[in-house]
Amino acid sequence: MEEIAANRSFGGWHRRYRHRSETLDCDMVFAAYLPPQADKGHVPCLWWLSGLTCTDENFMHKAGALGLAAQLGIAIICPDTSPRGVGLTGEDERYDFGSGAGFYLNATQEPWRQHYQMYDYVTQELPALVNSALPVTGRQSISGHSMGGHGALICALRNPGRYQSVSALAPIANPAECPWGEYAYGRYLGMDRETWLEWDSCALLRRAGCSHHLLVDQGTDDRFLAEGQLRPEALEAACQTTGVRLTLRMQPGYDHSYFFVASFIEEHLRFHAARLA
Amino acid sequence: MEEIAANRSFGGWHRRYRHRSETLDCDMVFAAYLPPQADKGHVPCLWWLSGLTCTDENFMHKAGALGLAAQLGIAIICPDTSPRGVGLTGEDERYDFGSGAGFYLNATQEPWRQHYQMYDYVTQELPALVNSALPVTGRQSISGHSMGGHGALICALRNPGRYQSVSALAPIANPAECPWGEYAYGRYLGMDRETWLEWDSCALLRRAGCSHHLLVDQGTDDRFLAEGQLRPEALEAACQTTGVRLTLRMQPGYDHSYFFVASFIEEHLRFHAARLA
Repeated sequence: MEEIAANRSFGGWHRRYRHRSETLDCDMVFAAYLPPQADKGHVPCLWWLSGLTCTDENFMHKAGALGLAAQLGIAIICPDTSPRGVGLTGEDERYDFGSGAGFYLNATQEPWRQHYQMYDYVTQELPALVNSALPVTGRQSISGHSMGGHGALICALRNPGRYQSVSALAPIANPAECPWGEYAYGRYLGMDRETWLEWDSCALLRRAGCSHHLLVDQGTDDRFLAEGQLRPEALEAACQTTGVRLTLRMQPGYDHSYFFVASFIEEHLRFHAARLA
Repeated sequence: MEEIAANRSFGGWHRRYRHRSETLDCDMVFAAYLPPQADKGHVPCLWWLSGLTCTDENFMHKAGALGLAAQLGIAIICPDTSPRGVGLTGEDERYDFGSGAGFYLNATQEPWRQHYQMYDYVTQELPALVNSALPVTGRQSISGHSMGGHGALICALRNPGRYQSVSALAPIANPAECPWGEYAYGRYLGMDRETWLEWDSCALLRRAGCSHHLLVDQGTDDRFLAEGQLRPEALEAACQTTGVRLTLRMQPGYDHSYFFVASFIEEHLRFHAARLA
């Protein structure tokens, strides 16, 4: 893995790396924030999964989270949101499918399955690389925004015991039942909707529950909420049915942007820090 | 003036406006952060002048400053960094001249002088508009980054009593004596270097001093420092000669990016808040 950028930040370092991903069969870039405490020892880490159109950079630049991560002594790892530049027809035609829109699942359909294995990448290959190359303890939590908020939920739900905690901001909570999910899942996974349920947080909750306390923030003026893309009500219903503890906070007036993420990231970082300690 | 965006942020609002500027003879966009306190009354404001290539958006998205502005009850106003799309030959050829590089001065040379009057825009026309349209008290301070750090210095030095305080991050402190300044000032102001001194913070300090306590942060690993573009040593010498109080902090390992700005913006906001109170 090759370091392609390093910026001093709040006494620690923001670093970007390029590496060859065997899982995705392409080169990938990811970013790591290493707090000052990582100069002297190993630190716990928070995985941050970003949303549609994002790269490893959006959270690092826009969330305003690094100062508090420095204070709390937590590393933050931001993967990219899809394979890049793999040359598939249609990979760059839509903002909500293909490049920038990997949905953190393992595609089964041609031509996507050769590269679009983001779930294995963010839960297996990249953690192994990070654990071997960076000063992290292995104690980890996971969070994300929108597509990445759902990514965080499914990573945690499919791997009980792996993460100390999970939270999400404006997650696409029920992709099997929303327009974004219907488009992308139909192409990545095929038209048998049963297979989609393996990658839907509400279905996973109904099937196996979850021992985590889930923290979810959602802006009430988020246009994707109004369009039925996010469906926090489905997440709430699934948690109620299965007795999973969910703190779902509807935040009045907030939209889907990083202005929303930045406004509430402090509480998410403190939520995770308390469980990573 | 037309609102083109509004995002709830830390209980207040990030808003973007488009308006016709008579001074610049073109349409301009600026951004305002209005803290929650502005819902109920008028608040003091901090002007933030951005650097080369930036727009009104960089600071609002990347500085991580809005949470603290909300807490302190300070509005932040971010102008753009130049006229835009005025159709002059060469306006978009270089990152350090023309669009995105107005240098906060009043150009005297053809063809630039018709539009490139950024000093009058940020000290006269835009404050008048902001004071009439937004809930601000008129108490104001000014800060900025790089080209905008110098812009903040010259706005304060040329207008004693106007601002409660001034600070800068990695300012182009002595443009009359650096490659960026030589290129831009030669074209905006002509080849008589005497005229450049009206727009050089070191020359202005030597001529008239300053009653402000200046706060300046500068990263030691900033490549533009190494290239001689920033010259904090000239600012330090001018302040020493004239007895102006300067707190110049060389920050080890930091570069010129917004990772640097974000790391130190809290102390700048608190510095201004104490003087705006």
